[in-house]
Amino acid sequence: MGALHAGHERLMETARRDSDVLAVSIFVNPLQFGPNEDYARYPRPLSHDLETCERNTVDLVFAPSAEEMYPVPQLISVDVGRLGEYLCGKSRPGHFRAVATVVMKLLNIVRPKRAYFGEKDLQQLTIIRRMVADLNLNVTIVGVPIVRETDGLALSSRNKYLNAEERKVAPVLYRALQGAASQVRSGEKDTSKVREVALAVLANVPLIRVEYLEIVDPDELQPIATIGGPVRIAGAIWVGATRLIDNVSA
Amino acid sequence: MGALHAGHERLMETARRDSDVLAVSIFVNPLQFGPNEDYARYPRPLSHDLETCERNTVDLVFAPSAEEMYPVPQLISVDVGRLGEYLCGKSRPGHFRAVATVVMKLLNIVRPKRAYFGEKDLQQLTIIRRMVADLNLNVTIVGVPIVRETDGLALSSRNKYLNAEERKVAPVLYRALQGAASQVRSGEKDTSKVREVALAVLANVPLIRVEYLEIVDPDELQPIATIGGPVRIAGAIWVGATRLIDNVSA
Repeated sequence: MGALHAGHERLMETARRDSDVLAVSIFVNPLQFGPNEDYARYPRPLSHDLETCERNTVDLVFAPSAEEMYPVPQLISVDVGRLGEYLCGKSRPGHFRAVATVVMKLLNIVRPKRAYFGEKDLQQLTIIRRMVADLNLNVTIVGVPIVRETDGLALSSRNKYLNAEERKVAPVLYRALQGAASQVRSGEKDTSKVREVALAVLANVPLIRVEYLEIVDPDELQPIATIGGPVRIAGAIWVGATRLIDNVSA
Repeated sequence: MGALHAGHERLMETARRDSDVLAVSIFVNPLQFGPNEDYARYPRPLSHDLETCERNTVDLVFAPSAEEMYPVPQLISVDVGRLGEYLCGKSRPGHFRAVATVVMKLLNIVRPKRAYFGEKDLQQLTIIRRMVADLNLNVTIVGVPIVRETDGLALSSRNKYLNAEERKVAPVLYRALQGAASQVRSGEKDTSKVREVALAVLANVPLIRVEYLEIVDPDELQPIATIGGPVRIAGAIWVGATRLIDNVSA
């Protein structure tokens, strides 16, 4: 979606190492924003983005208009079923359907051998992997680890929305997830206890509202009750009017 | 879906003329049959089908098992929206979602330059064309005209289900559609009057029950009230326990 930051640059570096030809798509997809979401104000610094692409030796930038992507009303879409119903999907109905649909379109237009997605948007990555498997798409999906600020805040184009005070408290999400992960690593199997520890870190922090914090299975990201293997811990919080997400492995 | 007849052979001949390499898929897709439909009894004469393919100089037959096509539960599917809600979709909920999904899978596995579909399954063809456009699939869809018996009955693998008596009355669907088309050609604009003429042809014919008979726009197959350009006239009838469909242009 553009507004490229060091997390996107990590995608480019990783892809560059693997590939002869490196393409980047920049498209703020109107269909994946809800009516009360930030489509209009989402940052679109195109010339800055093109410089970032050039600096990273990108061969091709695909930056279509909405009219180019949706010349007629989109009647056919990719239904992601229950994978889009929990975590971020709970508060963003239709979001992952629109993400899967636009990614399918972009993959069919650009036709990469491999496509690189950041692990910050873990549910997106999970759904895209499953879409590729279930619909037999001819592409390999590569997940790229989250890039963080020195204080732990996961890089996101939406971090730009934070004022100084909000920016200062924002890393608490990562600290809460780390707290949960260390509980899991020390052997806690009961996810309600793990959540309690993480939620305690977030409690009473000014400007913060928790949307969700869940311990999920790593394949489908379904919230689980008892830990019996590797898990992901994923959270979404509001810092003032800005929604941030993050996740860690444990 | 195999049970290949002269309609399928017409697809092969048309594709053969255009192409260096000709592939045929044979797969009776369990997901596109409703719980009370004919999945179990649908004919599967594989060795006869392979002979038909050989006679038509087919280079490659892809005849996977259901386990090969659906190794894990299919969570992601192609949602066809309102295009799957009328005509055949009305009595077959989920049918066109399953058709679009399996066609997407087959196209991604076989990766043809062009794919050929019969016009008898007009709603299927319409939905596949729109799927290709909306999701930017890299394939050209070619529609191939209906092949008929000398008495007008459209070829279908399901004609095998008809006993002698049923087979005798089955062509009445085509005659009804022709009656409607000739009304349209002589200038009738009111589709309710056109339908009346067609339904009169079907009324009181033994063994016949009409499921639908509609005058529709040729792009999305939506039933229309007033004719202002080219139309399709599509019908579905039951002959005893067998469901038959057909359509004509006007």
